[in-house]
Amino acid sequence: MTAGPAEDTRTRLLQTALRLFTEHGVEGTSLQMIADALGITKAAVYYHFKTKAEITEAVAEPGVRDLDELVRRAAAQKRRGAQVDVLLEGFVDLVIRHRALVALFSSDPGIVRAIEKSAHGGMEGFGQALLGILSGPDPTPAERVSAMVALTGLAMAGGSPDLAVLGDDELRTELLDVGRRLLGRPRRRTSQAVASA
Amino acid sequence: MTAGPAEDTRTRLLQTALRLFTEHGVEGTSLQMIADALGITKAAVYYHFKTKAEITEAVAEPGVRDLDELVRRAAAQKRRGAQVDVLLEGFVDLVIRHRALVALFSSDPGIVRAIEKSAHGGMEGFGQALLGILSGPDPTPAERVSAMVALTGLAMAGGSPDLAVLGDDELRTELLDVGRRLLGRPRRRTSQAVASA
Repeated sequence: MTAGPAEDTRTRLLQTALRLFTEHGVEGTSLQMIADALGITKAAVYYHFKTKAEITEAVAEPGVRDLDELVRRAAAQKRRGAQVDVLLEGFVDLVIRHRALVALFSSDPGIVRAIEKSAHGGMEGFGQALLGILSGPDPTPAERVSAMVALTGLAMAGGSPDLAVLGDDELRTELLDVGRRLLGRPRRRTSQAVASA
Repeated sequence: MTAGPAEDTRTRLLQTALRLFTEHGVEGTSLQMIADALGITKAAVYYHFKTKAEITEAVAEPGVRDLDELVRRAAAQKRRGAQVDVLLEGFVDLVIRHRALVALFSSDPGIVRAIEKSAHGGMEGFGQALLGILSGPDPTPAERVSAMVALTGLAMAGGSPDLAVLGDDELRTELLDVGRRLLGRPRRRTSQAVASA
């Protein structure tokens, strides 16, 4: 697929916005800063997005879409163990695939607020869905705390600059291992094993 | 100890600032908003603090001081197991004692940036010190990831509105349990046991 010049600018704009959001926070980033960093005019930014909120939503969109798909896929598993395994493995994959975006979500309430207002029903809804699957029906305090530490800790670690030296494969392996230990799931040798859980 | 009217205003000012920072982020909160919420003039705010940065530092100060003390206390332990236990137990205590502040630190880069510039050497230094003790000398990737998930996950869970229904004692017990599981430490019956580790 060959992208046209407009599509190309849109892609670069979103990449630049994500970088600036990470450096300055969503609230500390202006359309003018995005235009300046790209070497284009503010009018050229407006051609693609009318407001910063539209940019924020578009930056988050791939991650939100993957998260939505993951919640559906995990919830569709019949057995509780399989639900947890599919969610855990998919969540770690998602964290690795969107490391920069995850770092932003983990550290900036600005992007969370922006998504709250979007059509997706907000991160609150996702958080509840993810926690609901991980902690199970009618969870004990221990199950709730384990699920919360797992979700937030895996996301924060995945987005942490301190662990940026670890390659994607290595980080994925370690996050999965930690997640399984936290949630009391058996260790696996390969990600294929999840299909037969 | 009886606080004078000025001391009283300063205390209320910091409590109000913490609440507004939590609701709007540090960058989304102005001195005027703090004055309005307290029903005082902006001049009255200036009497105590010249800039928002000064307020931010003062809001964070009790937590930063406790963290500093904890790192020293843990590092002073002779045995590695005792270092981890003292740090883990002290960190969980700190998270519980400063739940609102921890929530802010976990979610707003504004306060982290404010502390970066402060005389304490910044949160980066604390993060490294805490991670260094938890993951040990010359850590494997697994040890680094476990320590990062433990620190960030415990802090995020401690500050999470989703777990606000849990009382301090219950949350402390569960966070300690999760932390020990993550870091491969034996479970304990009482917090006193740490003294003999």
